[in-house]
Amino acid sequence: MVSRERHLPKVMKPLDIGWFITAINLSDIAAMGGKPLGLLLSLGLTREMEDLEVKEIVKGANICAERYGAKIIGGDTKECKELTITGAALGIVSKEEILLRTGMKEEDILAVTGTLGRAGAGYLALKHGIEGVSMDGLIHPLPRIEEGKKLAKIATSCMDISDGLASSLYQLMDANRFGFEVDRERIPLDEEALKVAKELNIDPYSIATDYGGDYELLVALPAERVDEARKSLESLTMIGRVVKEERITIVSDGRKKELKNIGYEHFKGNGCKGKHL
Amino acid sequence: MVSRERHLPKVMKPLDIGWFITAINLSDIAAMGGKPLGLLLSLGLTREMEDLEVKEIVKGANICAERYGAKIIGGDTKECKELTITGAALGIVSKEEILLRTGMKEEDILAVTGTLGRAGAGYLALKHGIEGVSMDGLIHPLPRIEEGKKLAKIATSCMDISDGLASSLYQLMDANRFGFEVDRERIPLDEEALKVAKELNIDPYSIATDYGGDYELLVALPAERVDEARKSLESLTMIGRVVKEERITIVSDGRKKELKNIGYEHFKGNGCKGKHL
Repeated sequence: MVSRERHLPKVMKPLDIGWFITAINLSDIAAMGGKPLGLLLSLGLTREMEDLEVKEIVKGANICAERYGAKIIGGDTKECKELTITGAALGIVSKEEILLRTGMKEEDILAVTGTLGRAGAGYLALKHGIEGVSMDGLIHPLPRIEEGKKLAKIATSCMDISDGLASSLYQLMDANRFGFEVDRERIPLDEEALKVAKELNIDPYSIATDYGGDYELLVALPAERVDEARKSLESLTMIGRVVKEERITIVSDGRKKELKNIGYEHFKGNGCKGKHL
Repeated sequence: MVSRERHLPKVMKPLDIGWFITAINLSDIAAMGGKPLGLLLSLGLTREMEDLEVKEIVKGANICAERYGAKIIGGDTKECKELTITGAALGIVSKEEILLRTGMKEEDILAVTGTLGRAGAGYLALKHGIEGVSMDGLIHPLPRIEEGKKLAKIATSCMDISDGLASSLYQLMDANRFGFEVDRERIPLDEEALKVAKELNIDPYSIATDYGGDYELLVALPAERVDEARKSLESLTMIGRVVKEERITIVSDGRKKELKNIGYEHFKGNGCKGKHL
């Protein structure tokens, strides 16, 4: 469920909004190792919206759904005070392969697909008026469907990183009652994040850990199957491990620090000015 | 998708709201002849809402889901400017029995479950301060799951009457390219509608045809199977028939009139002051 002011950066055109809501719903199917089948799309539209805007939203949703082999199979259209869209994705996965957030074991290896910080870099570039930074990560997330299907055969648990790496790790800690140790320098930083961090003179890793919107998959893998996973999936990077103690530490230059959860939280007053995308 | 001001009468308490959103989603499963399995519930909550209100909404949703054999299996929670809730119901039905809005034949018999005008009566009673009228139809709709399953074995098409009988017939005409002839005096008027019509000195049938919220099933049946349907389902009333010409007429005392579609339409400016419930 996304609403205009809070979740959809102004730079998103109606076509992008349709892609976005579809992609983030399919991302949940990806995180379970599933093959997407259908999408239910409920549009809460404002009275001021033009027909064309609505058509473009639906077109964007169709383009994304088709790209991943799904169809829009239903939904609703209502009038709302603010553009509000709810998606519900349906997919299929074999019982044996289904990936859940739980299931990880101590000493499993933590890994992520793709690069992190790309969406956050777009957000910060918009906010601070930095030119020449790609907006793709921010407005055009790619659900990791193929990656999820491959990981389903190997990983012990999985989630998509919608609210930033730190927030995702805290959610996994809550669900699994394990902690994590992350090697800071192993985090696959997106080059857009490096660019923006340099401009703003901030730690580039903070863009990967504290800003949402990347929709990469974060998985735990049995240590003995890491090579197999690496062969099956080029875009996978090992970034840490599951530990017994319920703490999340980040190791940099051999020094351990606690990884703080300063990503977006709902109802805490940081709203659309916060770091959620 | 429902929002506070537009779709949820003020008289609804949080527990009622939870029941309502679940019931109207399950009603779509009923209209397809399905057995409900699960419900996805996305809550767009305002910053001002109390924890207890949210818990009561979820409790109401659970009570309704359990009553019809379904479970709440997922969803989302976000912050919105106005309380906005989207449900998506999942159910199962055999391919042979699935009921769709299309499929009716000329000379099929039109029938409805239950009584009509009960929700509209509640709405009008609230609006005009009429006492002693039941609010049950308005705030506590009952999805016709068992009725839908029985009708699935006999009916050629079906929909639930969420926006009033007239609006539903116009939607069926659009979908099927057939018209309908309705016998006014056969419409099973709810006694609350009779009560309210008397107080307001209006036509009681207009409450059944023009006001939404009843969530009864409107079906087309092959003429030769009407007796069978009647035996299988006591609460069924035959109200008219499917005709070739794409017009909707209502017959009263032997005179034919066009049945106007003056129920709720979105985006036409009658909004929450209109007749939709």
